[in-house]
Amino acid sequence: MTTASASTTSTQDFNKLLDTTAADTEALLDRLLSEQPEQGEILRPKRLIEAMRYSSLNGGKRLRPFLAVASAAMFDVPRQGALLAGAALECIHCYSLIHDDLPSMDNSDLRRGRPTSHKKFDDATAILAGDSLLTLAFDIITRDEVHRDPTVRLLLTRALARAAGIGGMAGGQIMDLAGEGRFGDKEPPDVAKLQQMKTGALLKYGCIAGALLGQASKEQYAALDAYGHAFGEAFQIADDLLDVEGDAAALGKPAGQDAALGKTTFVTQLGLDGAKRRLQDLLKQADAALAPFGAKGDVLRAAARFVAERQN
Amino acid sequence: MTTASASTTSTQDFNKLLDTTAADTEALLDRLLSEQPEQGEILRPKRLIEAMRYSSLNGGKRLRPFLAVASAAMFDVPRQGALLAGAALECIHCYSLIHDDLPSMDNSDLRRGRPTSHKKFDDATAILAGDSLLTLAFDIITRDEVHRDPTVRLLLTRALARAAGIGGMAGGQIMDLAGEGRFGDKEPPDVAKLQQMKTGALLKYGCIAGALLGQASKEQYAALDAYGHAFGEAFQIADDLLDVEGDAAALGKPAGQDAALGKTTFVTQLGLDGAKRRLQDLLKQADAALAPFGAKGDVLRAAARFVAERQN
Repeated sequence: MTTASASTTSTQDFNKLLDTTAADTEALLDRLLSEQPEQGEILRPKRLIEAMRYSSLNGGKRLRPFLAVASAAMFDVPRQGALLAGAALECIHCYSLIHDDLPSMDNSDLRRGRPTSHKKFDDATAILAGDSLLTLAFDIITRDEVHRDPTVRLLLTRALARAAGIGGMAGGQIMDLAGEGRFGDKEPPDVAKLQQMKTGALLKYGCIAGALLGQASKEQYAALDAYGHAFGEAFQIADDLLDVEGDAAALGKPAGQDAALGKTTFVTQLGLDGAKRRLQDLLKQADAALAPFGAKGDVLRAAARFVAERQN
Repeated sequence: MTTASASTTSTQDFNKLLDTTAADTEALLDRLLSEQPEQGEILRPKRLIEAMRYSSLNGGKRLRPFLAVASAAMFDVPRQGALLAGAALECIHCYSLIHDDLPSMDNSDLRRGRPTSHKKFDDATAILAGDSLLTLAFDIITRDEVHRDPTVRLLLTRALARAAGIGGMAGGQIMDLAGEGRFGDKEPPDVAKLQQMKTGALLKYGCIAGALLGQASKEQYAALDAYGHAFGEAFQIADDLLDVEGDAAALGKPAGQDAALGKTTFVTQLGLDGAKRRLQDLLKQADAALAPFGAKGDVLRAAARFVAERQN
């Protein structure tokens, strides 16, 4: 039943939609990260804007903006608002990658085959570029073009802060570091909670943003929340599986990094087969959550399949 | 004329007002930095909330919240909204101190006589505590209790992002580092622009926040903007003067640090007497800017004198 409706958005169609949103997000970020100051800004120092652009342009699949755009599209709201919300979300994602890569965090030299920010520039510039991208996200999400109703923009802003902050992504990162035994913790962290915070919160925000932009009913909001929850966990399990079974060339980074760090993952916790079964369960949950939207949910159904089956 | 009105708020009265706002801000931050998660947060990891509390409680004169509260008070708006805006502003200030103290930035071991965050905890925790305080500021400033009108809350949010981001404080910090010759820059930075961004933007935000909360007229907004501008520069000149003439014991840090780093300051640029003359000019400008408010401006007049005459 769910598979029948899921089949209406082909992989080819989906990839095209993903590419289009990525291109639009790229163009928007390019404009938002202009060298020209906005009203209330004195000037944008050259080195800092350069570092912000380095880490947020030419990048990735833009999966988080895609979730915002695809979720919002189900409510027939103007696409530009969803793209702006997606760009704000992507700024948060890019800031987190810069800070996570720092020597005192994961100490990574390469990201997507290029030097990380602190390697290309220096630690201080990388920290400030991250700080400034995080701050810019909250500038973007408040803008009039996001939604005509100020209350909606406020809800979007506060939800973004909660997804990114201590009870969301940033909190998840410190739990991840604690899991490496850095702070003398002896108990491994709860993998599901850690994932829900570190990677899940921002992915779910994409879906929630669509619901807020669409002024969804309580039931529709809950449906997208449930979808986003399943999507986030599926994303992480697929990631953990790729770290074990993936191809380094396709990944653009060595496989087996989690094991080398002695990390607790969904695979160490559930076993390889258990993790694969859980992934299939989550796809079904994601499908089921979208039932209230009928055929309008097809793109998000395809997004869940895409994430579960991705090779990098 | 301006001095006559300035004399109505005595130093004693002013200090009492400053202390009261500091105590109220402390209590509010204590509540905002609870270990209990807010709606939409999964949990608040112990180590991270501890680090956030360490760097934002028991701290300082709370001058920025005071500016928000005193400015808002001129418009007879509820004090709680101004305190919340002040708390958000203080979160940004505290985040900036944590990040500025990091080894790759100013590499400071002590702040207000206590170990800095990365000394007390570690670099990764300090970075994440800063990130989380920055993020929390945008959570706080959107809350219903800040102001009944959503549009006002959005204006407050966006202005805060612009004061803190690349065109404000963060941009000022990279210009300050560039001024030390770190990135191979040969020209000294423009001290006035640097100050306006690095320290001025947040101080001015306090004044602007009052105007926004009070739904000030265009003229009143411009008056508080001009006052905030003069106040920010006066604050920095006083700081530069203290670094040359101050007493290490009163400062809680060694004097002469700017000279040791070869920094361009208002004192190196204008000379000692020139800087003192400029400071007096700024006090007159601050006074003059407050003229439209009559006696209601007395507290802010006293605040400008306080900052110019402070010994630490």
